[in-house]
Amino acid sequence: MNIAVVGLGLIGGSVCKALKQKTSHTVFGIDINDIIKQNALKLEAVDYVIEPDKLVNIDIIFLCLYPMESVKFIKDNIAFLKKACIVTDVCGIKTYIENELDLFLKQNGCYYVGGHPMAGKETSGFFNSNASLLQGASYILTVSPHTDSAAFNKINDIIKILGCSVIVTDSNAHDKIIAYTSQLAHIVSSSYVKSPTVQFEKGFTGGSFQDMTRVALLNENMWADLFLLNKDNITREIDNLTEKLKEFKNAICDGDKKRLAVLLSEGKKIKQKHL
Amino acid sequence: MNIAVVGLGLIGGSVCKALKQKTSHTVFGIDINDIIKQNALKLEAVDYVIEPDKLVNIDIIFLCLYPMESVKFIKDNIAFLKKACIVTDVCGIKTYIENELDLFLKQNGCYYVGGHPMAGKETSGFFNSNASLLQGASYILTVSPHTDSAAFNKINDIIKILGCSVIVTDSNAHDKIIAYTSQLAHIVSSSYVKSPTVQFEKGFTGGSFQDMTRVALLNENMWADLFLLNKDNITREIDNLTEKLKEFKNAICDGDKKRLAVLLSEGKKIKQKHL
Repeated sequence: MNIAVVGLGLIGGSVCKALKQKTSHTVFGIDINDIIKQNALKLEAVDYVIEPDKLVNIDIIFLCLYPMESVKFIKDNIAFLKKACIVTDVCGIKTYIENELDLFLKQNGCYYVGGHPMAGKETSGFFNSNASLLQGASYILTVSPHTDSAAFNKINDIIKILGCSVIVTDSNAHDKIIAYTSQLAHIVSSSYVKSPTVQFEKGFTGGSFQDMTRVALLNENMWADLFLLNKDNITREIDNLTEKLKEFKNAICDGDKKRLAVLLSEGKKIKQKHL
Repeated sequence: MNIAVVGLGLIGGSVCKALKQKTSHTVFGIDINDIIKQNALKLEAVDYVIEPDKLVNIDIIFLCLYPMESVKFIKDNIAFLKKACIVTDVCGIKTYIENELDLFLKQNGCYYVGGHPMAGKETSGFFNSNASLLQGASYILTVSPHTDSAAFNKINDIIKILGCSVIVTDSNAHDKIIAYTSQLAHIVSSSYVKSPTVQFEKGFTGGSFQDMTRVALLNENMWADLFLLNKDNITREIDNLTEKLKEFKNAICDGDKKRLAVLLSEGKKIKQKHL
């Protein structure tokens, strides 16, 4: 098949490289940056680079842009899409993309399958991409009432060949869970480093500070979009965490050792079930 | 020299094993548990096990008990200590121990040097101890106006031989910084796992959930004591973090992308200075 990857950043570049390494599909790269396109060709991360008006030959599109850019790309270029083309994305938010593209693509004779690889790192861009980024990662696929099962199966098969474990859910569940497992962690990390005490941390940690703050190295524009597109879920998680922190503070202020040990013990028991 | 290690848990056991492996000092173990004492002998983690009334021959004591037990051990057994014995501890709180033992030991012809190895793991007890736990770790030593420089140098030399990097500070600075780099992280981890959404996390994380919650596996009684003995510092850090989380929440509720990107960018810049 002919597969196009739109946006040759960290994830898009890694998808290209994994497709080239692990499948015999022909890989087409689309990007706005000439240097990156030339490098993608030189490194054989793609077979060809194309402009959007050549999408008519493409069977599957991997949208590897930010959420709003992903939607815009499809709406701007819908006239060029091949009939029965399958479009999948890699955004960290799924209800917004599904609301914008699922029915829209169907009405235009194409298919949408939502995707979100649980892979990333603290550096971005094509030059940090590699095929192994996806190896062993969870890759969430979302289904809706409009999902075409043949289209879903094609994406599912490719994702598995790329070395990922596929998790299937719906877009609402995805956004609710990801607000907790990923988005909240980024907000906590970014908040954690802002204590005035941070200036003295060197030599005073056995690793917990590093773990707690690792994901503060993030792409601020992408994450700002993700938070705003998942407002209700992420604010609920912030409220919940704030409430739990307050319980600790109250027990400490009250000098209530018994209560404090219970709070810690409850946390330990939950963590033991979620290693 | 004759060195006694009091309390053969994770840290005490590791100190014994590192002393045996890396020095020619004679190592004496003190513990209340017979099985652990017999195993320490069998594994040659110690040369001898003794009761506290045999401390008269000991030049250096490593107190490896919880904070209040550490203080109680010295006060109960002060009569048995050799003149000019150096006592050092490994507690995660330093003002309390210093207030209780520094002058008290000096008035009894002995010396106190505060210590806190930045080493640990999510399992406790002698059977999880090993010499390599301390290798490469920061080891904080605290000094006070009463600190004897010869006593300090002896402890400093031993700690370096055990493979640690020594950081020297005073007890107030230690407690302030450790509230942030370590204690707050444990409270955040323990709070983070308590979201109702935790039941769905499996497959929905690329590692940030794991990093964020690693230290929720803790010894609740030890940490409850540490928090209560550092009340002002830890509650200030909880307040600060809560305030920063609120800034994120407000920007999200307001749909203020620009503000959100600034908040994230500020966090990223701080993290880049504190990798």
